[in-house]
Amino acid sequence: MQDQGETFLGKKLHVLDHGFVRLVDYMGSDSTVAHYASLGRAHTTTLSEEESIKECFRLNQLFPFEQSCLVFQIRLPIYVMGQLVRHRTAKLNSFSARYAKVEDYFHEPKAEELRMQSSSNKQVGTDLLNTEIAETCSQSIHKLSRWGYQEYLSLLDRGVCREQARTILPQNMYTTIFWKIDLRNLFHFLRLRLHTDAQKEIRLYAEKIGFVLSQLFPLCWKHFHEVYLSRISLSCSELALLKRLNVSF
Amino acid sequence: MQDQGETFLGKKLHVLDHGFVRLVDYMGSDSTVAHYASLGRAHTTTLSEEESIKECFRLNQLFPFEQSCLVFQIRLPIYVMGQLVRHRTAKLNSFSARYAKVEDYFHEPKAEELRMQSSSNKQVGTDLLNTEIAETCSQSIHKLSRWGYQEYLSLLDRGVCREQARTILPQNMYTTIFWKIDLRNLFHFLRLRLHTDAQKEIRLYAEKIGFVLSQLFPLCWKHFHEVYLSRISLSCSELALLKRLNVSF
Amino acid sequence: MQDQGETFLGKKLHVLDHGFVRLVDYMGSDSTVAHYASLGRAHTTTLSEEESIKECFRLNQLFPFEQSCLVFQIRLPIYVMGQLVRHRTAKLNSFSARYAKVEDYFHEPKAEELRMQSSSNKQVGTDLLNTEIAETCSQSIHKLSRWGYQEYLSLLDRGVCREQARTILPQNMYTTIFWKIDLRNLFHFLRLRLHTDAQKEIRLYAEKIGFVLSQLFPLCWKHFHEVYLSRISLSCSELALLKRLNVSF
Amino acid sequence: MQDQGETFLGKKLHVLDHGFVRLVDYMGSDSTVAHYASLGRAHTTTLSEEESIKECFRLNQLFPFEQSCLVFQIRLPIYVMGQLVRHRTAKLNSFSARYAKVEDYFHEPKAEELRMQSSSNKQVGTDLLNTEIAETCSQSIHKLSRWGYQEYLSLLDRGVCREQARTILPQNMYTTIFWKIDLRNLFHFLRLRLHTDAQKEIRLYAEKIGFVLSQLFPLCWKHFHEVYLSRISLSCSELALLKRLNVSF
Repeated sequence: MQDQGETFLGKKLHVLDHGFVRLVDYMGSDSTVAHYASLGRAHTTTLSEEESIKECFRLNQLFPFEQSCLVFQIRLPIYVMGQLVRHRTAKLNSFSARYAKVEDYFHEPKAEELRMQSSSNKQVGTDLLNTEIAETCSQSIHKLSRWGYQEYLSLLDRGVCREQARTILPQNMYTTIFWKIDLRNLFHFLRLRLHTDAQKEIRLYAEKIGFVLSQLFPLCWKHFHEVYLSRISLSCSELALLKRLNVSF
Repeated sequence: MQDQGETFLGKKLHVLDHGFVRLVDYMGSDSTVAHYASLGRAHTTTLSEEESIKECFRLNQLFPFEQSCLVFQIRLPIYVMGQLVRHRTAKLNSFSARYAKVEDYFHEPKAEELRMQSSSNKQVGTDLLNTEIAETCSQSIHKLSRWGYQEYLSLLDRGVCREQARTILPQNMYTTIFWKIDLRNLFHFLRLRLHTDAQKEIRLYAEKIGFVLSQLFPLCWKHFHEVYLSRISLSCSELALLKRLNVSF
Repeated sequence: MQDQGETFLGKKLHVLDHGFVRLVDYMGSDSTVAHYASLGRAHTTTLSEEESIKECFRLNQLFPFEQSCLVFQIRLPIYVMGQLVRHRTAKLNSFSARYAKVEDYFHEPKAEELRMQSSSNKQVGTDLLNTEIAETCSQSIHKLSRWGYQEYLSLLDRGVCREQARTILPQNMYTTIFWKIDLRNLFHFLRLRLHTDAQKEIRLYAEKIGFVLSQLFPLCWKHFHEVYLSRISLSCSELALLKRLNVSF
Repeated sequence: MQDQGETFLGKKLHVLDHGFVRLVDYMGSDSTVAHYASLGRAHTTTLSEEESIKECFRLNQLFPFEQSCLVFQIRLPIYVMGQLVRHRTAKLNSFSARYAKVEDYFHEPKAEELRMQSSSNKQVGTDLLNTEIAETCSQSIHKLSRWGYQEYLSLLDRGVCREQARTILPQNMYTTIFWKIDLRNLFHFLRLRLHTDAQKEIRLYAEKIGFVLSQLFPLCWKHFHEVYLSRISLSCSELALLKRLNVSF
């Protein structure tokens, strides 16, 4: 393993009020990726590692990234986990609230973190709320989280089984998972979750994961950013238009 | 498609207080399975459809089940969905609480549905609670669900975006999904989720799904039950013991 | 199922000298895709089925295609199957040469079908060969296929087991498979295999599969062609260049 | 990484006449597996690493094995690769015969390695052939491999493109792949491919892979053997029979 990786292994990178991302294990490097990329190319071609990685993104040939992988330990609100778990190619092991008592961690956004419903984009919240209203809302969320946890403890005290008692806990409750994903699918994940359409809370997690990646696979990260993350796709008719304008690629 | 299937398509099979399972589409039949099973066998062997299906389960050769699949629409509490979504080979499309207001459906167990924590099995709740205590607990869950939903509406009214407001809703909230799974993975799912170690609420869903299956693929269902569902596996040393007892298979 | 589908079920579409593609079963339609697409959108938006499908391709939101699938029976040279089998999300059941004698079908290209090695593109063969040379080469391939099959039969006659005897058969030998794939992964497959960089023989299979698709899912096919198949992706720096030219999207 | 692993990294373990298995990279250990297993259990239970791993196999809870993985470089006849590639959860990168000339390596079994077709088991070859006949057959395979390769070179010399010329090479031709698989799927692979019903040639590869595994994950390997590999499953009626014999588990 490389030095860059070693300095990250085990370190908590904090996210939100009680969350974190921690690199637990990994396999592969920029050189590994370049090596696998070369297997699918003519032997006469001699590309540097960097050129080789760049070509992968440019030609959308992503299989060389599949031979590298990373394992993270992540503490996150369960509604954020609900988005993470949809990336089916990752392996996710989670703490089970059926086996043990849930700990008292809830994501309670501060007044200045609450966002208004955007009227143009149905999906995301963007602008900030009026300060006074935001303060009231933040208090509501805090109170409900407190009451939810108290009732949970009280149900357990009265003998209700954990698997039923947990169902009244709100979805801003934190949980801890181990998450293993190969580099190809991680780039796909980051492309979706670093996007401005993604919910801000998951974007904050994606940014920390991206930071770890930029240290372990600097060349892959560089060209992911340059070629893959921000690319725009043109349809037939848009291309035809460009040709009339004498722009060629 | 067969007649049995047609009579199910579109019918809601009710589960819990507000949930349901509804067959939306399917592909394949007992004959399809028997056909694919025959591809991997010597042509000289002539087995009936039923024998052919039985052999698949007995020899653990499950690929012929992969060519059939089913699509269900399911309304279920999100903590039950959290278990369903772990079956990564299924395709799951869900209603998004970021796009539209969550409806007012929560799973609120009645007093007689609340279970005590089992002391021997750490995972499940088994015995029933004292009636009076159970009544109090059931009321708590009801009140918290009501309050949670009121606060959710109130956050929306004050302008908080849907994607943040939803995070205070408790995990007994219902959601609706479309779930597509091939027959091989469905048998694997049922084996885990019909087990007594599975949480009772997901078992109730598994039973309805199993019922649909028993109507569409009666021979597969029969031998799944006989050979696959209830089988016990013996280790080397257990086998050695049996041999000393003169029991052979 | 739709009428268009029924007229295809069971019909052989011929490919190469002895190959074919045959639709065996399918599930879903343009309407199904549009329905699943609407689940992930704001309810206030009202898009026609066609607009809804177009948006999926434009925004690269491909999950609504996962709920539809197709099953094909395909006879193809095993070196073509070697490329097909790499699409790991498809379910492939094949005839086994360990269980039964291989039939006498080999892909023997005619003189005019033999291609020269391209010097610019290391991967593909493009231009045609000199007629006389091509005739000699075509004869060689024919003779070697004949001799290979004769020796195979002769090994079997002498008692050699099928699983060893088959290993001397050349890779232009035909085999028959059943191939089930969901619509999302089929579009991914077609995008790669309809490309000019794909080997011509697999492209011919992809074209027949695409033809079936165009009949069963006409709107999906139309926008796959317009938006997805031929699109070009621009990197950051190419976009910056365009902006300097005052072209905007 | 552990010491045991380091001593294997990069070493060729020879298989058949020209094949090999070489460990290229890996992630995880017995401790890793035991750690993930503990996440899904009650915290009050205290099991040793070995007990924890044994429980995984006994209860068929295989997800803790998914967080470990191994990468092998393997040179093998393409008909053996045809079986390997069916394990779809593995990532396989192979040398492409479209980009570069195939090397002159073919699996040519010696007379004493040729097996007769079994009459009872349709699938496998078991007993040995008469020595004289075997010698003739071995010579045939050798001659055909030689002639195939000569014709391949001759087609290339005459200008035929690589992607067409390669199609006449027999299926005992060697190729080299990189193969990454997680521990859970590797155990599934080994269970199928170490079985007496598997073709002997792939079994020889499975044995070398198993040997590497036994050095890197000794406790997992031990209980895979004891509990998982050789287990027998009993159906309902077989269990009922045992109960009448007063045997209990």
